[in-house]
Amino acid sequence: MLRCKLTIAYDGTAFHGWQKQEPPGSEPLRTVQGVVEQAVREVVRAPVDLVGASRTDAGVHARGQVAAFTSAEISVPLERLPLAINSRLPDDVQITNATFVPESFNPISECTRKCYHFSIAHGRSLKPLFDRQFVYFTYHTLDVPAMHAAARLLIGTHDFSSFAQINHGRDSTVRTIFDCSVTAPAEDRCTISVIGDGFLYNMVRIIAGTLVEVGRGRLSADSMGSILVAHDRRAAGPTLPPQGLCLMWIEYEEPHQGFPVDAL
Amino acid sequence: MLRCKLTIAYDGTAFHGWQKQEPPGSEPLRTVQGVVEQAVREVVRAPVDLVGASRTDAGVHARGQVAAFTSAEISVPLERLPLAINSRLPDDVQITNATFVPESFNPISECTRKCYHFSIAHGRSLKPLFDRQFVYFTYHTLDVPAMHAAARLLIGTHDFSSFAQINHGRDSTVRTIFDCSVTAPAEDRCTISVIGDGFLYNMVRIIAGTLVEVGRGRLSADSMGSILVAHDRRAAGPTLPPQGLCLMWIEYEEPHQGFPVDAL
Repeated sequence: MLRCKLTIAYDGTAFHGWQKQEPPGSEPLRTVQGVVEQAVREVVRAPVDLVGASRTDAGVHARGQVAAFTSAEISVPLERLPLAINSRLPDDVQITNATFVPESFNPISECTRKCYHFSIAHGRSLKPLFDRQFVYFTYHTLDVPAMHAAARLLIGTHDFSSFAQINHGRDSTVRTIFDCSVTAPAEDRCTISVIGDGFLYNMVRIIAGTLVEVGRGRLSADSMGSILVAHDRRAAGPTLPPQGLCLMWIEYEEPHQGFPVDAL
Repeated sequence: MLRCKLTIAYDGTAFHGWQKQEPPGSEPLRTVQGVVEQAVREVVRAPVDLVGASRTDAGVHARGQVAAFTSAEISVPLERLPLAINSRLPDDVQITNATFVPESFNPISECTRKCYHFSIAHGRSLKPLFDRQFVYFTYHTLDVPAMHAAARLLIGTHDFSSFAQINHGRDSTVRTIFDCSVTAPAEDRCTISVIGDGFLYNMVRIIAGTLVEVGRGRLSADSMGSILVAHDRRAAGPTLPPQGLCLMWIEYEEPHQGFPVDAL
């Protein structure tokens, strides 16, 4: 059996998130998993199951989602596989890379690091127009250096239960944040970048909501420490809407980064 | 009577162009003029007519469209007028500026210069994803310096009938191009910028289609001269699709640039 790892980019605006949803008695919702899986099935001419690394929510975007499928045979050469699948995909999702991986490869459990960006436009009276589906907007002018100082306090291995939606359904709320920073690509823009070994449900959007509270001066930068130790969702800021969020990349241990088919 | 000049930006993707269209026996089409005029009517509480400087086609964008309306009274202070109108507009169109102008101001006939950009992604196997509604895409790698050299040959006052859609409905096909250039914001991107005193129907999209032929090596840069003198639409390249096109700005003589209400 061949196992293939795909890197997938999508504009999440018109998708009901990553995960397939087939409500009983009605049409399946339009999801990234559903659309890509169908295109892969057409290319390999077999009923594959596509397993994604991250279940991104409705409206969340990805530049580097990872998913894998297994098939007895793939007649298309590996280097042409992305184009073959893309020719069967709508224009808001595309395969940017395909590699062969060991048959045991599990894109969820074997992930070592993930990076998310949350993009914000702030401090102006006009809302973003041309990239409005990719940024969160606030009229308030944000104090980006204060947000960055607060972001640094999240780095490390902590119990992030204050930053998880209640009923997140995970046994452990301990995660490691390898890096968290806030940069300003323009005077009225800022980008929150978070790299971690995994994230609780809505964790990045709650981190973003808390950092915006810091940026507005409603929380001090050093309050992040007390929010962490509160272990209480109510201590953190609001969950920001999905459209500012983008899954940038997912990293795996070396053997699972994918290798040429000759190596199999 | 007060006459007000609005500067308008829009994502043209979901509009049937600028101009109001009310096909007999069916619902009016969604047009920028129709949507903005309705919002202005709600703000000034009177049945104004909104006259736009450029009738952009379906799918064409604008950062600096200009339109004007006359009203006996505008209760909202001028500096708050853009926000008042914007609060009644959908998120794909917005007023970026409002000024008072003389009652005689005609946004079409008094325009002195207009600037359009046509944006292209080229020379890569992956189509643009996140800005796909704002660029034209070609797999071919384009020779940008050759395109720029060709663009320079269009500068001047010429009969542009080779670059006008047949049945353009204008008496004169003579126009002045003040500047035409092709720049490369990235290795796989180029932007055609054209500044003129006015443009024939589809003229910028035909100029772009002809410059792409030069970029692909199917026309030489210096063939622009012979295309101009041919006075024959068939001598030029194809009309490129609308989504790469954006109306950047429109310039008026000094007295009509708009002035504060105190000056009236």
